[in-house]
Amino acid sequence: MTDEVARAWAYLSRVAEPPCPELRALARRVGPVEAADRVRSGAVEDTVGRVVEARRHIDCAAEDLEALDRMGGRLITAEDAEWPLLAFNAFRGVDGRPQAHEPMVLWAAGPAYLDEVSDRAAAIVGTRAATSYGEFVAADLATGMAVRDAAVVSGGAFGIDGAAHRAALAADGTTVAVLAGGIDVPYPSAHAAMLRRIRERGLVVSEYPPGERPARHRFLTRNRLVAALSGATVVVEAGARSGAANTAAWARALGRSVCAVPGPVTSSASVGTHALLRDGARVVTRVEDIVELIGHMGELAPDEQRPESELDGLGDTDKRVYDALPGRGSRTVDEIAVAAGLPPTQVLGPLAVLELSGLVLRKEGRWKLARRTSRTT
Amino acid sequence: MTDEVARAWAYLSRVAEPPCPELRALARRVGPVEAADRVRSGAVEDTVGRVVEARRHIDCAAEDLEALDRMGGRLITAEDAEWPLLAFNAFRGVDGRPQAHEPMVLWAAGPAYLDEVSDRAAAIVGTRAATSYGEFVAADLATGMAVRDAAVVSGGAFGIDGAAHRAALAADGTTVAVLAGGIDVPYPSAHAAMLRRIRERGLVVSEYPPGERPARHRFLTRNRLVAALSGATVVVEAGARSGAANTAAWARALGRSVCAVPGPVTSSASVGTHALLRDGARVVTRVEDIVELIGHMGELAPDEQRPESELDGLGDTDKRVYDALPGRGSRTVDEIAVAAGLPPTQVLGPLAVLELSGLVLRKEGRWKLARRTSRTT
Repeated sequence: MTDEVARAWAYLSRVAEPPCPELRALARRVGPVEAADRVRSGAVEDTVGRVVEARRHIDCAAEDLEALDRMGGRLITAEDAEWPLLAFNAFRGVDGRPQAHEPMVLWAAGPAYLDEVSDRAAAIVGTRAATSYGEFVAADLATGMAVRDAAVVSGGAFGIDGAAHRAALAADGTTVAVLAGGIDVPYPSAHAAMLRRIRERGLVVSEYPPGERPARHRFLTRNRLVAALSGATVVVEAGARSGAANTAAWARALGRSVCAVPGPVTSSASVGTHALLRDGARVVTRVEDIVELIGHMGELAPDEQRPESELDGLGDTDKRVYDALPGRGSRTVDEIAVAAGLPPTQVLGPLAVLELSGLVLRKEGRWKLARRTSRTT
Repeated sequence: MTDEVARAWAYLSRVAEPPCPELRALARRVGPVEAADRVRSGAVEDTVGRVVEARRHIDCAAEDLEALDRMGGRLITAEDAEWPLLAFNAFRGVDGRPQAHEPMVLWAAGPAYLDEVSDRAAAIVGTRAATSYGEFVAADLATGMAVRDAAVVSGGAFGIDGAAHRAALAADGTTVAVLAGGIDVPYPSAHAAMLRRIRERGLVVSEYPPGERPARHRFLTRNRLVAALSGATVVVEAGARSGAANTAAWARALGRSVCAVPGPVTSSASVGTHALLRDGARVVTRVEDIVELIGHMGELAPDEQRPESELDGLGDTDKRVYDALPGRGSRTVDEIAVAAGLPPTQVLGPLAVLELSGLVLRKEGRWKLARRTSRTT
């Protein structure tokens, strides 16, 4: 990217509140340099004119690029190989949502390569008012993803987001923070150190130019990028009103998997995840559930382990005969037949099976259990 | 019911392991007295002959009826008005399950009327190895059901079952214990006092004659009655291997609602409920969710309460303008327009709306927030 092109993108990125499909269309049609010139001089149609009116006289492209440079960052546009073409394809055909547009340009810093990351990533998001349970689960899932080479995308916030980012970092995994303000504006400020570590080892990315502060509507706009960059969005904890539900709604609108982690029904921090489960979100209890959704073909989660019982292989009649033996003492075949409600002739076969399995013993024509086991389910 | 008929039913109830559709069909066809005579004398076809062979010489009908009498109990058959016809209709058309048959006769004790109870009942079941969380939720749901005049059906076991029964009793509600042995055999024995209270104030019911001890296969057979007598089966906690999953499977086979209560994914006692949720069970977090399923028309659960914000009624542009005001200090209309990325002419309307709502103040041509509120979602 030449300096002239970079300055044009930087100018365009600040001149309208993203996402701005009209401006993006203009830049695509005439190129960023010509588009910037036209906007600056006011030589644009009304549709673009309106959205740039308030800011077209502001040009701090040089300063913005300097700030980006100081962070070792880069601009990513649709012309770059790093642009997550496949992931952003999801924006086509999403109707009815005013902000459902591909971004025009992304400000990014960090060694991770955005396109590669989005190929195998899940968002782990949730309430800022997380419980220790929620933070534990978020960290546990993020650690598991790191171990399995999957990127953890989140919003850098307190609570669930922070727990997920930190655990991914601690496990030497890739984590991406999508911010609602400039990538040089740590928000919340108490997460400055964490965001710096993410920038050094993962990726910090934003639609907003340097210096921009997050605002309410920007969090909601940002959430669509969290969802779009992730194969699945996993909500770990969410209150009745939580931004995480908004990210989940974006994931659904974009055709991504929506997942929720169950929690105690006594916890207000799980009210939102249970509402998502009611609305058809997938249940996630283990990292394997996530990897199955974002992984490549054939990467199926193994079945949940079940404790085994020595009676597992037996048929129904065998079990009935087994149950007909007393906890203590022994019985004759006839007594067993009565207890089991089976003809004596149908008791002998099962007894032989049980004897072979070492479950029952025969002694002087009577039968008894080989040892005491739990008798009931 | 005459003594002769009662004795015939009592004999038939013990002579074959329930459920025994062949025997039930015979009793229906020729009446219980004639059926008992034929079985006793061996004058029956092979299909019936086989199932009664082991026990046909045993007749303790008189003793069984005496035991029932001592408990103030009664036999309930399809001839009685109390027979839950509608509930047991579900057994018709259930294929592929060897035990999916209506019972022939039920041994019962307690003031509750079975048909009435099953008209507005839910099963609350779960693992014997319940956590304090599970027992709390089971009790909470059962209390709520009692208050709403819904009966709590369960299996009388340790853990979730016991917590549900006890809470229903404590709230003066109706609770039904369906046992896997005789109604005079308290199982587990440590629940003898609880089962006696259920018998005094609710209903204890069983397919098995007095004195019969529960056995593994009887618990599974019993579970179908728990499910059939309930409009919905709610599993509160269940391990990877739990009888509660079996009750849930019966509920599904019988066309009843299957519900599961989420819990911490870190708890092995919730592995089974999460598996049920994965398989399409309904999420239950509040008693209203249950009452909606078993209640009569129009008894809908109210929406989960959401905390309200004073910004709820505002449009997107209003919110964007609101967000463009600084946390401290004030801004001019032009400054607000730049921050919001809107033309100054589009900022005035929203500012008027916000002023009317008492959210912003105008002072000497500048605007500020009326008071500090949380700015982010």
